[in-house]
Amino acid sequence: MRRSPGLSLLALLAVTALPWGTGWAADPALLAQARGLFKPLPKVMESPENPVTPEKVALGRLLFFETRVSVDGTVGCVRCHQVSLAATDALPKSVGALGRLNPRNAPTVLNAAQEFVEHWRGDRKSVEDQATQALVGPPSFGNPDYASAMAKLAAIPGYPELFAKAFPNEKEPVTPENWGKAIGAYERTLVTPSPFDAYLEGDATALSPAQEAGLGEFVQTGCPACHNGVGIGGSMYQKFGLIEDYWKATGSQEIDKGRFDVTKNPADTYIFKVPSLRNVARTPPYFHDGSVATLPEAVRIMARVQLGRTLTDAQVAHIVTFLESLTGTLPSTFREIPDLPAAGFHPVPGK
Amino acid sequence: MRRSPGLSLLALLAVTALPWGTGWAADPALLAQARGLFKPLPKVMESPENPVTPEKVALGRLLFFETRVSVDGTVGCVRCHQVSLAATDALPKSVGALGRLNPRNAPTVLNAAQEFVEHWRGDRKSVEDQATQALVGPPSFGNPDYASAMAKLAAIPGYPELFAKAFPNEKEPVTPENWGKAIGAYERTLVTPSPFDAYLEGDATALSPAQEAGLGEFVQTGCPACHNGVGIGGSMYQKFGLIEDYWKATGSQEIDKGRFDVTKNPADTYIFKVPSLRNVARTPPYFHDGSVATLPEAVRIMARVQLGRTLTDAQVAHIVTFLESLTGTLPSTFREIPDLPAAGFHPVPGK
Repeated sequence: MRRSPGLSLLALLAVTALPWGTGWAADPALLAQARGLFKPLPKVMESPENPVTPEKVALGRLLFFETRVSVDGTVGCVRCHQVSLAATDALPKSVGALGRLNPRNAPTVLNAAQEFVEHWRGDRKSVEDQATQALVGPPSFGNPDYASAMAKLAAIPGYPELFAKAFPNEKEPVTPENWGKAIGAYERTLVTPSPFDAYLEGDATALSPAQEAGLGEFVQTGCPACHNGVGIGGSMYQKFGLIEDYWKATGSQEIDKGRFDVTKNPADTYIFKVPSLRNVARTPPYFHDGSVATLPEAVRIMARVQLGRTLTDAQVAHIVTFLESLTGTLPSTFREIPDLPAAGFHPVPGK
Repeated sequence: MRRSPGLSLLALLAVTALPWGTGWAADPALLAQARGLFKPLPKVMESPENPVTPEKVALGRLLFFETRVSVDGTVGCVRCHQVSLAATDALPKSVGALGRLNPRNAPTVLNAAQEFVEHWRGDRKSVEDQATQALVGPPSFGNPDYASAMAKLAAIPGYPELFAKAFPNEKEPVTPENWGKAIGAYERTLVTPSPFDAYLEGDATALSPAQEAGLGEFVQTGCPACHNGVGIGGSMYQKFGLIEDYWKATGSQEIDKGRFDVTKNPADTYIFKVPSLRNVARTPPYFHDGSVATLPEAVRIMARVQLGRTLTDAQVAHIVTFLESLTGTLPSTFREIPDLPAAGFHPVPGK
């Protein structure tokens, strides 16, 4: 995590000028307010439908980095969720199997399991569901059907045994559902605690004064109406463009009707899931279509089209500085890549 | 590294039956012979043309995992050289930018810098040369020219500063040559010491008895005529198919004339670089066209088409067991993925 070595003159002035600012000391009222709006990350994002076990997590970690199950052998979860880019791919829209373009920007999988639904339009109900459906998504893994995907997986020596361990008492454990459950269990451990979590847990000095000032600006501007809870987002749907048409502000190439295309309910037109802001400073470009390249510009647009507010450069900068406190520490099980089974696995005497 | 917990009956019989075998104790004569044929890995694979500095290595490590410089934003060195697969991609022939198929199998970059030339046909003179040319290789990064690649790189905030640090006293350090030098310097640190290195350094018990027996078989069969030195290969050219046409044994889909297509010298027909066998147990499929799926089959074919020998199943198994002792330990700077710069980098007051 990067922390500010000091304050610029501008930020310092802002801190002293803002009503909630107390200079270098943390503001107890702001902390209390923040604790009402936001929640720190859990250690593991549990689900009653897919209890997290060490065996599932170990298998899911391998499957996350596995590319051999895709139709052309080039796509794994890791294609769009690169470790080096906070589990995104830095593309406006991801490119999957056979070079196919995805319809929307790939969200990070970090902390994603705690969101109320997955994908921009909520058409994946959980990380498990997302992982399973990705196997046959044409611009994702691109397999023509689940059976061919499972046949490839089962043919890699090592995996059938690991599935049997992760899903004991199942006669044929190599299934698309268990693929999703194993990857889902792994993703439920991909939690990235940040300075903001330490702050919410009571360490009022975990945020720099500039970050604390930015939090105040974030709250005052009205952002937590949608960006709240554990994910600072990821807990509700909202119309993109409450005040103005979003595509005019973002310069989007096409108009995406959002959840309407899933439900066909006119009330769902331009409705998208409110994205989590965790690690947002490390996941450009922004919005469902990756139409905006930088975080300051994204903040400016959001204030305008959602809240009807025109922020000053200083206000934008403060909010961005706060958002950087949401950049968390990667778990070592994500930072470090495992060896996949069966690269060279073969039965030999004496081994 | 996997080590055998014990010996199968077959391997045990073989150890006691072979002339160089001394049962469970190491054979000093075999060790002396091996030390004449092979050399342990250095700590760093130095080059006078590109001295390895910490600044170059740090930059090159980032660039290795960087996908944003490719023509479609999906290809980095890591596309074909995945950490999880011993720096290969498990494909017969790699798929690069815009889904383009490469003409040959991607060799691992681990320990590659010590080879006398790079690529199967020796048409890249060093790892630096390989990394630079990859920028414009159509089935690699796919950029139309070096200028557009460098423009993308220079536009990512953070890189110009890192290039300036790695190449001080250069006015415009963001060049294709320095891209190659930085990645080359990083790859010169990608050394994977194995049990066989410990053995060569004098720890005669570093190999299991089965591995030692396999080494004897490997030597007796004649493999070190080509597979010798630091890389156990990677130090000479050789005709593939000295005794028989290789494509008949491998079932290759097409006949690759090898280095002939580079030099147009008829003497170079079917000439390829002898590949290093380091980490070979983790880098299927095998040969320049990835035409053979398993290591036992590759060993069997090599003995036949290069040496005119038909090995028994037990002999093949012994050699494979020895080859597994060449599986080394990944450096933590490869196992662990770095954060790339400028995901969300933007100048803000106070940061």
